[in-house]
Amino acid sequence: MKGFAMLKIGHIGWIEKEKPKAGPYDAIVRPLAVAPCTSDIHTVFEGAIGERHNMILGHEAVGEVVEVGSEVRDFKPGDRVVVPAITPDWRTLDVQRGFHQHSGGMLNGWKFSNIKDGVFAEYFHVNDADMNLAHLPEEIPLEKAVMIPDMMTTGFHGVELAEIGLGDTVAVIGIGPVGLMAVAGARLRGAARIIAVGSRPALVEAAKYYGATDIVNYKHGDIVEQIMKLTGNKGVDAVIIAGAKTEALSQAVKMVKPGGTVANVNYFGEGEILPVGRLDWGCGMAHKFIKGGLCPGGRLRMEKLIDLVRYNRIDPGKMATHIFRGFDNIEKALLMMKEKQSDLIKPVVIVE
Amino acid sequence: MKGFAMLKIGHIGWIEKEKPKAGPYDAIVRPLAVAPCTSDIHTVFEGAIGERHNMILGHEAVGEVVEVGSEVRDFKPGDRVVVPAITPDWRTLDVQRGFHQHSGGMLNGWKFSNIKDGVFAEYFHVNDADMNLAHLPEEIPLEKAVMIPDMMTTGFHGVELAEIGLGDTVAVIGIGPVGLMAVAGARLRGAARIIAVGSRPALVEAAKYYGATDIVNYKHGDIVEQIMKLTGNKGVDAVIIAGAKTEALSQAVKMVKPGGTVANVNYFGEGEILPVGRLDWGCGMAHKFIKGGLCPGGRLRMEKLIDLVRYNRIDPGKMATHIFRGFDNIEKALLMMKEKQSDLIKPVVIVE
Amino acid sequence: MKGFAMLKIGHIGWIEKEKPKAGPYDAIVRPLAVAPCTSDIHTVFEGAIGERHNMILGHEAVGEVVEVGSEVRDFKPGDRVVVPAITPDWRTLDVQRGFHQHSGGMLNGWKFSNIKDGVFAEYFHVNDADMNLAHLPEEIPLEKAVMIPDMMTTGFHGVELAEIGLGDTVAVIGIGPVGLMAVAGARLRGAARIIAVGSRPALVEAAKYYGATDIVNYKHGDIVEQIMKLTGNKGVDAVIIAGAKTEALSQAVKMVKPGGTVANVNYFGEGEILPVGRLDWGCGMAHKFIKGGLCPGGRLRMEKLIDLVRYNRIDPGKMATHIFRGFDNIEKALLMMKEKQSDLIKPVVIVE
Amino acid sequence: MKGFAMLKIGHIGWIEKEKPKAGPYDAIVRPLAVAPCTSDIHTVFEGAIGERHNMILGHEAVGEVVEVGSEVRDFKPGDRVVVPAITPDWRTLDVQRGFHQHSGGMLNGWKFSNIKDGVFAEYFHVNDADMNLAHLPEEIPLEKAVMIPDMMTTGFHGVELAEIGLGDTVAVIGIGPVGLMAVAGARLRGAARIIAVGSRPALVEAAKYYGATDIVNYKHGDIVEQIMKLTGNKGVDAVIIAGAKTEALSQAVKMVKPGGTVANVNYFGEGEILPVGRLDWGCGMAHKFIKGGLCPGGRLRMEKLIDLVRYNRIDPGKMATHIFRGFDNIEKALLMMKEKQSDLIKPVVIVE
Repeated sequence: MKGFAMLKIGHIGWIEKEKPKAGPYDAIVRPLAVAPCTSDIHTVFEGAIGERHNMILGHEAVGEVVEVGSEVRDFKPGDRVVVPAITPDWRTLDVQRGFHQHSGGMLNGWKFSNIKDGVFAEYFHVNDADMNLAHLPEEIPLEKAVMIPDMMTTGFHGVELAEIGLGDTVAVIGIGPVGLMAVAGARLRGAARIIAVGSRPALVEAAKYYGATDIVNYKHGDIVEQIMKLTGNKGVDAVIIAGAKTEALSQAVKMVKPGGTVANVNYFGEGEILPVGRLDWGCGMAHKFIKGGLCPGGRLRMEKLIDLVRYNRIDPGKMATHIFRGFDNIEKALLMMKEKQSDLIKPVVIVE
Repeated sequence: MKGFAMLKIGHIGWIEKEKPKAGPYDAIVRPLAVAPCTSDIHTVFEGAIGERHNMILGHEAVGEVVEVGSEVRDFKPGDRVVVPAITPDWRTLDVQRGFHQHSGGMLNGWKFSNIKDGVFAEYFHVNDADMNLAHLPEEIPLEKAVMIPDMMTTGFHGVELAEIGLGDTVAVIGIGPVGLMAVAGARLRGAARIIAVGSRPALVEAAKYYGATDIVNYKHGDIVEQIMKLTGNKGVDAVIIAGAKTEALSQAVKMVKPGGTVANVNYFGEGEILPVGRLDWGCGMAHKFIKGGLCPGGRLRMEKLIDLVRYNRIDPGKMATHIFRGFDNIEKALLMMKEKQSDLIKPVVIVE
Repeated sequence: MKGFAMLKIGHIGWIEKEKPKAGPYDAIVRPLAVAPCTSDIHTVFEGAIGERHNMILGHEAVGEVVEVGSEVRDFKPGDRVVVPAITPDWRTLDVQRGFHQHSGGMLNGWKFSNIKDGVFAEYFHVNDADMNLAHLPEEIPLEKAVMIPDMMTTGFHGVELAEIGLGDTVAVIGIGPVGLMAVAGARLRGAARIIAVGSRPALVEAAKYYGATDIVNYKHGDIVEQIMKLTGNKGVDAVIIAGAKTEALSQAVKMVKPGGTVANVNYFGEGEILPVGRLDWGCGMAHKFIKGGLCPGGRLRMEKLIDLVRYNRIDPGKMATHIFRGFDNIEKALLMMKEKQSDLIKPVVIVE
Repeated sequence: MKGFAMLKIGHIGWIEKEKPKAGPYDAIVRPLAVAPCTSDIHTVFEGAIGERHNMILGHEAVGEVVEVGSEVRDFKPGDRVVVPAITPDWRTLDVQRGFHQHSGGMLNGWKFSNIKDGVFAEYFHVNDADMNLAHLPEEIPLEKAVMIPDMMTTGFHGVELAEIGLGDTVAVIGIGPVGLMAVAGARLRGAARIIAVGSRPALVEAAKYYGATDIVNYKHGDIVEQIMKLTGNKGVDAVIIAGAKTEALSQAVKMVKPGGTVANVNYFGEGEILPVGRLDWGCGMAHKFIKGGLCPGGRLRMEKLIDLVRYNRIDPGKMATHIFRGFDNIEKALLMMKEKQSDLIKPVVIVE
């Protein structure tokens, strides 16, 4: 079968591989729609997770089940499914501790295009289908559905980590698609004022659509100063970092109130250390909580997010600014994520 | 000064009282808008909190500060303010424990029309103004603002107690104004499916407006059976009881999943005991959590709710179905709450 | 093989059954030590969970692995193991929701002597060995170890549900072995004052050993009155119900402060409803939280409890007042739990 | 009156000041016992909180009330009291948000020897006596009681921030008196294995007394490596930083498991930034939570800690290695904290 792969750091291309086989609890799925992710770009062109050879890329997909193992109960060939970016092994002590994302080791719940071949293939393998897949309802179109596996769960996880309360004032740093979903998630959790930090007009417009009440443009000056000014020098109740450089952590700590939370869902790709300003952090005593985590995956999470789309609590489809039809467009779509032209939010490839 | 009072159980009427005086930390406020509450009806006509003589009624108000004590820092005569129904003494160990509603004893944070004269008066007294009042922004009209002191904070507290997660399925029992705010609050916290239990068409329509996806009419059969059927026999993640008879608690326990929460913000007015079904509660081992609490008051809470209105996260004004102008209409408005004609949600009296 | 069984409600006896077989993820274990539980008595003589025919009893055991399935990674024949009373299927959405005790349905994580044959047999079957068994360190003697699978995890879970804080005052209702572990658990979580409700001298002495500071004897008057008197009418921060009649729930609600928690780990065996006093519960608004849950099982939980014993944080062996040697003594030990002679806390049968 | 003061950075000495006066809610207290704190040393000799002129030092005291304001209800001259190091203004929105430590601004709950004169004086002023003082029971000797205002509340707060669960493995970095109380607190909250990082024999012995199961000596090599080795490369569930250099934060992040918490109660005195290792923090996605906070003060907290001492859950008096009698010994005791001779844990001055 054909797949679009990372050949080695800095090199991509189409390759041929054996069609994967399903173990007793697994499923084989063919993609109906896929989307490239900025982290694919990090992986290939920055070598952010180290070297890989001929690894098929992609971890955002909805698909059709084509084969299931003998022990799979709830899925059968022909079922349309949402496939989470995070598909852990659910039988570990890490899961019993409550952290499926780190099942089997830190970040190890992330398998596609990291530990195994990804979804940019004619077929891909899903471990533990009953625990990792979710049925896709008829009424959700593919370009919406494909935002669920990573963009929605990641942006929303930022909001969950931030422990936002009703009426809070929240800052979201970065308004790429994950940041937009953090904005939408903050609204969904009852934030009142949402200050989005970004610059590109298409993203700013989308941020407002998803619930931003204020926009801070980092090109117009220091973002901490701008946010302190907007809040009458009080700072914000929570900050979600959803796409940023190394300095974002110290900026966030600076702008959050004592007792507030900084929640990171950004993949920090550079530098040896992430700095926290000693005085801003109250010499260690400010009760400014710093959290960061990989997005939740698995079936239940996907079902919850599907319900949010189904009951019209959110329309993630607005982010699909560029929709391609045909498997072969995966390459073009991926490269768009690298170039990031001004009107791009997220490209989607409809394979069906 | 004039006030509309409970003369004794079963009797109401206009009375004359001395204008209240402000202690060093207090404020005297004249109402700009008030709303009667079902609990006023319970208090007067059912004697739900016991006998009271010539106690001025009412605990939902926005007003104008007319006098402040010497130690008040943040408010001055002329300021327009939201006055919470719950105005605790903030200097007690109960507050240090985290429960200002029970400052000085169970439910003792509730002072207006309970422990002291209420807001249906030409002037009323607010203890600890800096901690209990909140500034009302110009742009919020009075009929919206007056929903904040009790309806919003109470309905939303049900949602907070219920610990709703993103994408959850939630049942709300009772869709009077508190129930409607519980529906709205459930949407604000990211519930996906919201099943509202009610019957009166005006309320059903409002419930849909505020976010209900399904309506269960108790006149059409057992509500537990209806909800189990709607959820494919899985039950709901959480139940909020916002207006109900004694049996609601056992119904709620029955329809909630193991691991789910039943959150009550209803004032149970009758019966010696509230029953929990032993088997439905897993013989005591089902992890079905049962909570119930008086709404939060105080300044910070009001400010957060004001922000939700100001940033258009909710429009509580849709509930103000009957708006009267003139102080003297308080009596008529209160009696409407007793009669509850078919198109009534909430009457408001604009005093200004 | 031989097993000691419930023949039908009210009847017990030795039976012969086929030795169980291990599926690919399972283990077959022979007991080294077992203990009978009051719930075995409820099951057989009160029919508390309904009729069962020729079901082998017992769910408290440590044992030796004699066979493992092909997919078991971490255990092999000869390993000495702690076997939790609760051995869920870990691959369900209930587990993803965080409630393994109710995996596959309310209370369904409890399999031994409920859904399948128990541990009072020459051999017994353990599903998902890697997720449900824990290695027993050499240095922990069997009579201590056998308190871990149910007594420790159940009593401690009461404490966890009660959300005890450092320095709290806690009441524990019932001081059978689960109640004693609730007392010990309350001390382990940092309660200051622990008021134990019981009567039998052997239990009272043990309660003091495990950390009770005050004893309330229900034979000396109403326990609520006694506890209110002891606490200067303030009530307690939390109540753990660990063995009690139907009325315990309303007693607990009465004696707990607003903002406090009532945590039940008792198996309520009788009555259609459990009553909550309406006024004591603040007409639904007192913030008196009511919780109840089946004990956690699984491997991680057992490992944590083993560590508490290994590092001498607790000695559960003090409860093993009657130690028998030889498999055939299971019948005698079980009947002791029925008779409950005055010096009994817990009988243990060393099989080895 | 006489007081021992910071004259300016680097200089200390006895000064004369006016006896303070009580406002209506305040009390004037004379010390019965005081203890110097390492932070006094930081303040004076490192200028850690900036310049101060003729500010009386000290924030750890028990005393006798000599005067109360007109509005004080629960204390009267002659009462023996525990005085918390943190004595906030309880009437602020920060308190309503749940963070009294930051009432009125970051760290502003800390008044003694920071914002106002401290307790090393013949008399000192306590704001809001009813909310900040606690009665000292007869049976607790002064040298124990004086560990409550700062050492116990700070060490225990580390444990609270760390969210330790029953049976957890915990590392405590730094075993000065705060670290020792973190060790004791970890045991009080049910940690199983407690790995204490320190070196000085007197402290190591005390750490074992308070519950440490393993000692890691930083002089014997990298502490992260040592702890990873001790835990079979699994890392620990939580780390409490209770006295350390800048690098402690990154060491802690490195040794904690994904899903675990790093809790800081150390006063970081140097450097512009505190570094977090990017890869150790999972590039921002490891769910390694970083917290740090000033100790809780106020009356309720003191009462809880007093109860822990009264009910023999802990004996903080073991830390009082050097007990002086007489007010004039304050200077000597303070200088001991600077020199830190090998057998010193904490000096106490009994003034009575």
